[in-house]
Amino acid sequence: MSEAATTLPDVDHQRVVFPEGLALDSGVMLAPMAVAYRTYGTLNEARSNAILVCHALTGDQYLAETQPVTGKPGWWSTIVGPGKPIDTDRYFVICANVLGGCMGSTGPREEMTDAEGRGLGRPWGTDFPTVTIADMVRAQKKLVEHLGIERLLAVIGGSMGGMQALQWAALYPRSVFACAPIATAAHHSAQNIAFHEVGRAAIHADPDFCHGAYWREGRIPAQGLSVARMVAHITYLSESALTRKFGRRLQGAKALTFLEDVFAVESYLRHQGSTFIRRFDANSYLTITRAMDYFDLAADHGGDLSRAFHGTPTRFLVASFSSDWLFPTAESRAITRALTRAAARVSFIELESDKGHDAFLLDEPEFHAALGGFLSGSADAVGV
Amino acid sequence: MSEAATTLPDVDHQRVVFPEGLALDSGVMLAPMAVAYRTYGTLNEARSNAILVCHALTGDQYLAETQPVTGKPGWWSTIVGPGKPIDTDRYFVICANVLGGCMGSTGPREEMTDAEGRGLGRPWGTDFPTVTIADMVRAQKKLVEHLGIERLLAVIGGSMGGMQALQWAALYPRSVFACAPIATAAHHSAQNIAFHEVGRAAIHADPDFCHGAYWREGRIPAQGLSVARMVAHITYLSESALTRKFGRRLQGAKALTFLEDVFAVESYLRHQGSTFIRRFDANSYLTITRAMDYFDLAADHGGDLSRAFHGTPTRFLVASFSSDWLFPTAESRAITRALTRAAARVSFIELESDKGHDAFLLDEPEFHAALGGFLSGSADAVGV
Repeated sequence: MSEAATTLPDVDHQRVVFPEGLALDSGVMLAPMAVAYRTYGTLNEARSNAILVCHALTGDQYLAETQPVTGKPGWWSTIVGPGKPIDTDRYFVICANVLGGCMGSTGPREEMTDAEGRGLGRPWGTDFPTVTIADMVRAQKKLVEHLGIERLLAVIGGSMGGMQALQWAALYPRSVFACAPIATAAHHSAQNIAFHEVGRAAIHADPDFCHGAYWREGRIPAQGLSVARMVAHITYLSESALTRKFGRRLQGAKALTFLEDVFAVESYLRHQGSTFIRRFDANSYLTITRAMDYFDLAADHGGDLSRAFHGTPTRFLVASFSSDWLFPTAESRAITRALTRAAARVSFIELESDKGHDAFLLDEPEFHAALGGFLSGSADAVGV
Repeated sequence: MSEAATTLPDVDHQRVVFPEGLALDSGVMLAPMAVAYRTYGTLNEARSNAILVCHALTGDQYLAETQPVTGKPGWWSTIVGPGKPIDTDRYFVICANVLGGCMGSTGPREEMTDAEGRGLGRPWGTDFPTVTIADMVRAQKKLVEHLGIERLLAVIGGSMGGMQALQWAALYPRSVFACAPIATAAHHSAQNIAFHEVGRAAIHADPDFCHGAYWREGRIPAQGLSVARMVAHITYLSESALTRKFGRRLQGAKALTFLEDVFAVESYLRHQGSTFIRRFDANSYLTITRAMDYFDLAADHGGDLSRAFHGTPTRFLVASFSSDWLFPTAESRAITRALTRAAARVSFIELESDKGHDAFLLDEPEFHAALGGFLSGSADAVGV
């Protein structure tokens, strides 16, 4: 794999640095702490039209514009923009790179600092502290305050983004008017932890990982990261989506050879793996998958998820996709039940789709209509 | 991983060598060809009580006795033995290591031969030809004939063993009185191919794989093979089985550290990976997963699975497990429909179990009763 020798390109991300830093759940004080972010649309005078979108494991802040590394459209361009369900003519949309990420927010590939906040002239690498979903949310809260916003009209996210949305509503109920956790869960299941662990094992097994110090050697663990992406990608698709896309189609004409990419589905997965390594940092992958694995909102509230939302003023839209087996509908139902027990205002929809977990990123008109209506109704209620 | 330096132990397997060899589907003549096997019970005078059990991807011929490498009980000891559903007091049970395997049958770790059948003093390694499920079955047919058996009372197998059972009935209908394909499918799905490809990519990515010539270097691709086993193992278990076994239990006392095995499920998977490398050959893993991926019995019969069984005299028991998502019940239903269209005598049962694909290896009383009854009825019909 020729990409093995490349490192991630340096991009000049828009960001804000908080010199006072952030006290992490692990007890570590991370200072200074930077949050890279992008905004779309205009904040109104009442500062009441701000929507925070939280990205998923391998997402970033380039929500609705060209991603500077890949040159591809933003990951939610289908849904965010003028006249779209997340209408940038009406809303001020914010998206921040998560803490621990690799697109400009403080994370393993950024410069390590000592206890006094002095730069040490080397990246954090594996010395980057363990972060949690709550840490990511606290970092975003600082950004939102920095932007002069007291209450968000909505916090929205799919997958790990949905975990953050739930965590936002639990931590800052007065700052979240509406919350839409999509294709997500209030904790990471044993199976999901197991799939993450396979990816981490593949990264650790790659000699180019150099025990996490690949940055020192000018190498990247391309093969390990690629295998991690391949296995994750399978979990993002449904069996029927894979069958429809590829079936048992052979990539080449010759059957019964021992090529490495005989079936079309294999060639596709290898492509997914090899493009991923050009834009994602392995230590970030380890850090963020761990944060997801640790997420357990009920456990943080004595084992009762409803306690996380007791007396919440926030209105919720919980959405799942019927063929999503990574975050199955049962998880969304559990969230909805807990919210109902907490006397929250909650709507739940299971959307029919055969596209698996990935559906939340794709063109799903029924989902877009539901989310658009939920936001529009919330905006009307607030007077936006 | 300290196992990285070890190689597989040499075991003196019981085997028969066929000097004339076998003509493979790929067009290659594999000669000589050896089949390693074990038998249990006694062949009756009429030679009518023989049952062939076909093993799965990582199984072997040590069905009902101590496995010589691991020292553990045979993989189907729960079901094969005196007084058990596959009753060795009544039946003569045969199990052969598959062609391409690593427990004594001709495969990548056995000595390579040239076109004249002369030994070349080195293992086949990646030069071992592509084999198919049908090739495996043809090799077993030679063994069965060698044992003087014209017609098997039954051919039974789960997972890849079930593929072989179906292939047996399709290739040699007059030689199979009864056939029990369990937790299997008539073709490998796109998702299953994709999971296999992740495992193969992990093996190829391991520098100790040495492009398949690890045997020359005295190395084994332990990390890659271990990752392959880990991802496969997740697919063998149901989400609920993983949750029941491990849930989100932490392995150690300390939360929020960056240990590699924080969750119990991770520790378990790593153990699965590291024990596997002591007993399985990486090139065999590549060879056999390919054979499974190529399996498509309908495609071999003009796209109509029923044509594979037209006019078959064989009686069938098709069995699936409700929580098996690797070979879901829908696949067994498709087999049953095709057999019905072919006017075959077929029973189909879906067994309630939350143990996933692995259920066919475990103590599942309802399954054991069904299989035992099916065999006993078949034996009665034959007069055993």
